[in-house]
Amino acid sequence: MSRFASLDDIKAACCDLPDGDAAAAAAVQARQLTLTKPPGSLGRLEELVAWLARWQARAMPQLDRVKVLVFAGNHGVVARGVSPYPSEVTAQMVANFEQGGAAINQLARNAGATLRVIPLDLPSPTRDLTVAAAMDEAAFIAAVSAGFAAVTAGTDLLALGEMGIGNTTAAATLSAALFGGDGARWAGRGTGIDDAGLVRKQAVVDAALSYHGITLRDPLHAARTVGGRELAAIFGAVLAARWKGVPVLLDGFVCTAAAAPLARLAAGGLNHACAAHISAEAGHRLLLEALGLNPLFDLGMRLGEASGAALAIPILRAAVACHCGMATFAEAGVRDRE
Amino acid sequence: MSRFASLDDIKAACCDLPDGDAAAAAAVQARQLTLTKPPGSLGRLEELVAWLARWQARAMPQLDRVKVLVFAGNHGVVARGVSPYPSEVTAQMVANFEQGGAAINQLARNAGATLRVIPLDLPSPTRDLTVAAAMDEAAFIAAVSAGFAAVTAGTDLLALGEMGIGNTTAAATLSAALFGGDGARWAGRGTGIDDAGLVRKQAVVDAALSYHGITLRDPLHAARTVGGRELAAIFGAVLAARWKGVPVLLDGFVCTAAAAPLARLAAGGLNHACAAHISAEAGHRLLLEALGLNPLFDLGMRLGEASGAALAIPILRAAVACHCGMATFAEAGVRDRE
Repeated sequence: MSRFASLDDIKAACCDLPDGDAAAAAAVQARQLTLTKPPGSLGRLEELVAWLARWQARAMPQLDRVKVLVFAGNHGVVARGVSPYPSEVTAQMVANFEQGGAAINQLARNAGATLRVIPLDLPSPTRDLTVAAAMDEAAFIAAVSAGFAAVTAGTDLLALGEMGIGNTTAAATLSAALFGGDGARWAGRGTGIDDAGLVRKQAVVDAALSYHGITLRDPLHAARTVGGRELAAIFGAVLAARWKGVPVLLDGFVCTAAAAPLARLAAGGLNHACAAHISAEAGHRLLLEALGLNPLFDLGMRLGEASGAALAIPILRAAVACHCGMATFAEAGVRDRE
Repeated sequence: MSRFASLDDIKAACCDLPDGDAAAAAAVQARQLTLTKPPGSLGRLEELVAWLARWQARAMPQLDRVKVLVFAGNHGVVARGVSPYPSEVTAQMVANFEQGGAAINQLARNAGATLRVIPLDLPSPTRDLTVAAAMDEAAFIAAVSAGFAAVTAGTDLLALGEMGIGNTTAAATLSAALFGGDGARWAGRGTGIDDAGLVRKQAVVDAALSYHGITLRDPLHAARTVGGRELAAIFGAVLAARWKGVPVLLDGFVCTAAAAPLARLAAGGLNHACAAHISAEAGHRLLLEALGLNPLFDLGMRLGEASGAALAIPILRAAVACHCGMATFAEAGVRDRE
């Protein structure tokens, strides 16, 4: 499937998700015990290899085809003064991505990953979520489908991210819709809004929650009405990755919020996703806790663009290199513990 | 200088340490503000570039010549039952390093770094630190000199690590000597000793502290009498790096304890060193706190071999790639904030 026909189609794709290859993960754990190191001494690197093995369905996981996907969208809510940057910066940054000048270009190259940037109807921002549904059903289905179609089977690892002036406001509102709480809990400074702007942003989140009311209890409805095109595309990409056997690295607050509806629609829905980092954006830590995700590092980053996810790729490469390249005690003639 | 003639020579080399190039660090901060991202949004990656610039004395730092140095030593205290592995494993693991089968081989290759392993008189373990000075002055000076000589000017970044069955006992005793506290505070499970072994190990640390008494107040004396050859060599390498303009990545508990005397001998003595990670070894967190070092990640690793330090190299590469490769707002035609 590369395109959904209806909301019900999307909802159906969120049921009976595949559970990965438990035997491959168990084989990783067994091999780890034979390698020339004290058992467990590579810590989370060992767990990461088992996780990759499960979702790649391969006892010796590989990272030959690693992709970074960045989705971009524009947001009508920017008219409410929620960002220090104008909406035109979204398209300007997409051009910067295409010319190789952004952080994610350097980070993807550093990680040995290919980068693809997918702008989603940038000249038509979503509607202001305080007074309307951000997207009608057709727009939402198109965005989810675009994300779904962008993921190809055979990808060894997918790092996801976004660009969209105003999208931390959408992410905060969506987080509140999915997990409760208000603007004061979920809104942060985004690209760096000042104190007055933060107060405005919190009020915008509260206004959106009030406008949409209990309809937000439906996770897909929430994703459509208080999300954004790039968030919907990330949701579609995470869903596709699950069906296509592709482990996913999530980036920061917006990316994690975009994926979160899948966890609300299906228990363990994000088991094939790893949180790369904790962003400095205030709501991210709360969101990771709500989702039970344990990030790999906390370096105070808050750029988006899949920057944190891309930075995690070399860590996974290191984990796989150890697993596949190390000698066993027997091979190396090293005495194991007494 | 490539070889110290006396303890006084070593002590003299710990005075009037160079302070790095503040102008290069300031130039990094100025350039960061012009790059196409919200100011500060790359978090610690921005700080890391400024740190590299200061110690490389280059406003555009580079990571072309990155080296991993692993020192190995044996410890008489192993006779006290402080490790589940026999001393012969040290030499066996050195052979494994030389054959490319250990974790650090994979991690160094993954990081684009060259690996050099320096075994220090493995057939002659240090003396049991509970009943003697671990090293006499000649042995200590030789080990510090070996570490000092192993660092070459023009190295862009140096990751340090160790291998030595029994050396977490030395590191725990040295940490207690430098920062106070007893075996219960500083001794951990090392390669994975059981409960009874941990109690023995704590008692060994306490016995060593009691045997050496107030002589341990002198940091160099402590490094000689309760340390080990590979710890002394790491101390020498960290000292050399300061004089030769080489930023240093510290690994886990043993490596950090080995470097710690320099912080006690000179204020800011470890400013050119970055703690790569928090090891799962219990004392490491306490030691980092005592030294005011803020590690980059915590992945539950406890292998030594410079494994954590090597894993940090790709993070530094990412930071440098962003700094040197990103477009400015002006170059990219992206509107800066209002």
